[in-house]
Amino acid sequence: MTQTMPTLLDLAELKQLVRTVPDFPKDGIQFRDITTLIGSGPGFSSTIGHLAQQASERGAQAIAGMEARGFIFGAAVAARLGLPFISVRKPGKLPVPTIGVDYALEYGTDRLEIDPDSVHGDQRVVIVDDLIATGGTAEAAVKLLRMAGGTVEHALFVIDLPDLGGSQLLDHAGISVASLMQFEGD
Amino acid sequence: MTQTMPTLLDLAELKQLVRTVPDFPKDGIQFRDITTLIGSGPGFSSTIGHLAQQASERGAQAIAGMEARGFIFGAAVAARLGLPFISVRKPGKLPVPTIGVDYALEYGTDRLEIDPDSVHGDQRVVIVDDLIATGGTAEAAVKLLRMAGGTVEHALFVIDLPDLGGSQLLDHAGISVASLMQFEGD
Repeated sequence: MTQTMPTLLDLAELKQLVRTVPDFPKDGIQFRDITTLIGSGPGFSSTIGHLAQQASERGAQAIAGMEARGFIFGAAVAARLGLPFISVRKPGKLPVPTIGVDYALEYGTDRLEIDPDSVHGDQRVVIVDDLIATGGTAEAAVKLLRMAGGTVEHALFVIDLPDLGGSQLLDHAGISVASLMQFEGD
Repeated sequence: MTQTMPTLLDLAELKQLVRTVPDFPKDGIQFRDITTLIGSGPGFSSTIGHLAQQASERGAQAIAGMEARGFIFGAAVAARLGLPFISVRKPGKLPVPTIGVDYALEYGTDRLEIDPDSVHGDQRVVIVDDLIATGGTAEAAVKLLRMAGGTVEHALFVIDLPDLGGSQLLDHAGISVASLMQFEGD
């Protein structure tokens, strides 16, 4: 097998690969788009390398990622470390009895579900997602993984929007947050 | 960084890790569930290893995966090979002008979209997904990636259900299909 050995880009270089789309999904929002980051071979591989190193340093025994963009980063980190991947899904996707948590959105509510058997014993689960804004989705994932018996103390994100307070919300839930880059003023 | 070097499981061992759930999503369907495969660290990493080897042998310059389960496998293959990952998304998810293809489901239609700029020139794009059944979703992804200028000749799947004819459908579209395992009688 011929395997490309990609350059490991540093965090400042990775930040340059994130595209900012103004006024999406509504006026005044600067959408930080990872399409261009994952569209760079060295950029994507380096992102996974940095996240995998951080997950490893935190003693991860499994990686959990939330549908759908969390799958892109979380699964690749799990595969790189040889760890199980726990898919945190939208309602109705799993073919077995699930456990679920409802959580508030700006308008209405949403729900996350997992197969409770996908968490093995009290294994140390590290959450990986593309972006933390208000932290509501990540907080729901933490609750769900803990309901299934997991030990959840760390969450890793590619992007943090610190002005939206997600890190503090997770801190109150006993979760330490790390991210590869931050965008202020969002 | 301490990195686990997982055992590379063979294809027969990987097949044992797929869970069969009877009568989902409706009576008489045997649902082949990858939750248990990705829930095994060695199983998931080995699956990505086998897919990455096949993608590399086919000259992949980018990997495309379809939302949502295709992200789990496709992105990890791209990261392992240091290649770009092209996310083929459900409608309304991307923050930029997209191109889309509608395709038929058993009841009604569905739609896939991509950012046309995520395909660079005529790069050789290999599609990776968890499962091929009738092949309708994969056929739509092929059309879309070709509309964006990509050279698309290969699709890789973890699971093929050959009785449902997906491989033949893609063969008619000029796509050669490979899979890590097959379940007959579905």
